[in-house]
Amino acid sequence: MSAAKRQKTSKDGVPYELIYWPGIPGRGEHIRLALEETGAQYTDTAHQGPDPVLSMIGESNLGDDVNPPYLAPPMLRHGDLVLSQTPNILMYLAPRLGLAGPAEDEDAIYRLNALVLTALDGLSNEVHDCHHPIAVGLYYEDQKDESLRRTRDYVANRLPKFLGYFEKVLKGKASGEGPWLYGGRLTYADLVLFHCVDGLKFMFPKAMKAMEKEHKGVFELYEAVKTRPKIQEYLASDRRQPYSQGIYRHYDELDITE
Amino acid sequence: MSAAKRQKTSKDGVPYELIYWPGIPGRGEHIRLALEETGAQYTDTAHQGPDPVLSMIGESNLGDDVNPPYLAPPMLRHGDLVLSQTPNILMYLAPRLGLAGPAEDEDAIYRLNALVLTALDGLSNEVHDCHHPIAVGLYYEDQKDESLRRTRDYVANRLPKFLGYFEKVLKGKASGEGPWLYGGRLTYADLVLFHCVDGLKFMFPKAMKAMEKEHKGVFELYEAVKTRPKIQEYLASDRRQPYSQGIYRHYDELDITE
Repeated sequence: MSAAKRQKTSKDGVPYELIYWPGIPGRGEHIRLALEETGAQYTDTAHQGPDPVLSMIGESNLGDDVNPPYLAPPMLRHGDLVLSQTPNILMYLAPRLGLAGPAEDEDAIYRLNALVLTALDGLSNEVHDCHHPIAVGLYYEDQKDESLRRTRDYVANRLPKFLGYFEKVLKGKASGEGPWLYGGRLTYADLVLFHCVDGLKFMFPKAMKAMEKEHKGVFELYEAVKTRPKIQEYLASDRRQPYSQGIYRHYDELDITE
Repeated sequence: MSAAKRQKTSKDGVPYELIYWPGIPGRGEHIRLALEETGAQYTDTAHQGPDPVLSMIGESNLGDDVNPPYLAPPMLRHGDLVLSQTPNILMYLAPRLGLAGPAEDEDAIYRLNALVLTALDGLSNEVHDCHHPIAVGLYYEDQKDESLRRTRDYVANRLPKFLGYFEKVLKGKASGEGPWLYGGRLTYADLVLFHCVDGLKFMFPKAMKAMEKEHKGVFELYEAVKTRPKIQEYLASDRRQPYSQGIYRHYDELDITE
């Protein structure tokens, strides 16, 4: 048996360790939701302050014999493996948690990953640029005019484009029956879309309200995830971090409908 | 044998079809480089005009029984499977093309995907925002002042951050011997970084020249890929699309060093 196979076997039953900043749901939230929905054993450094993240991404941390160094959280430690990048961590976790569609559908994970990358592109990464269009290293207050200009475009063009895309996915045959994006069952792509919609509702309540009528399927999916027992319990718990100065921020002057 | 397994078997030996816009290397280039380096059989709709892309992303295309609809190219068709999203397509292709590290290292693909997503985030997606910081739907000429401001930040802060990260990856033990990012052998992550550096050298020749001294490993990797026989032959062929109005654009006024 090869070293890699041995390593894989030895990871069965090993709890997951999420390494993420405290104080915001952030990109780590996508990983938490998958772990919470499936009742997986995990720890979360968000409840230990910023030091675990800082030591992982520090200048002197060059990774180890098998793991390259890490640029940014979230990271997931599972046995000897340490992974970064949200969609990558989810792709690793989803089949292990039963969130990647039917086990015999070997290509499902790639179809789900396409949906997840598209949601993160348009409903998460681009959202951050609404309050930081010029430089992530500057304060919002130093780029307020440009933020409003970018947000106007986002709300008028990008938000309907991406929500419209997911509405179309829900209309397509590959989504199957029920409220879900793929194959007629809950997958991690649904959890990702749920959190994007949740963050957008916090950031742009007026624009999101105006989107409901034309995107009924997306909002039904949102409610279907939100009312799942384990998700409901999690959202009410202190394991859930509040929205703050992360990707999804609420500024009254950016809460516009056009 | 399940339907999924049968489908997988029936794809062996089926050529790949890249569906991408004509006239730019674009995001499709990452896929071309993997196919070209390994001498894979493929077709490329870039040589057939925009119609194949337009019919895939058109409003009435809802995908099919197994594939959700598509928002944007590149797409890869392989038998019954149609995939979108660059890093996703690469993750599907790389193990099939022998570009995902040793076959017995089952976690390698996730480590490589993290490197690829990081390269695409910082050295491709953010680069597009240097000439479109306010709205992708507006002309560059309508956001020139903001573009210069964003580019100043990119060249001063983001470019060194991401090139510095890959320099660090090359210094880490997991990169192994030789010029490569992971495991001492060429993988698709090296091809992705190569194209990012190539595009950046076209867009920001002055800033990239200034980066060489502090990022020797990254530029050595670039040269090591560029001089591989199949890559060299490809780059000189008419299968290679020229840089134009894509992600990597050259504007004299944005060719700055600080």
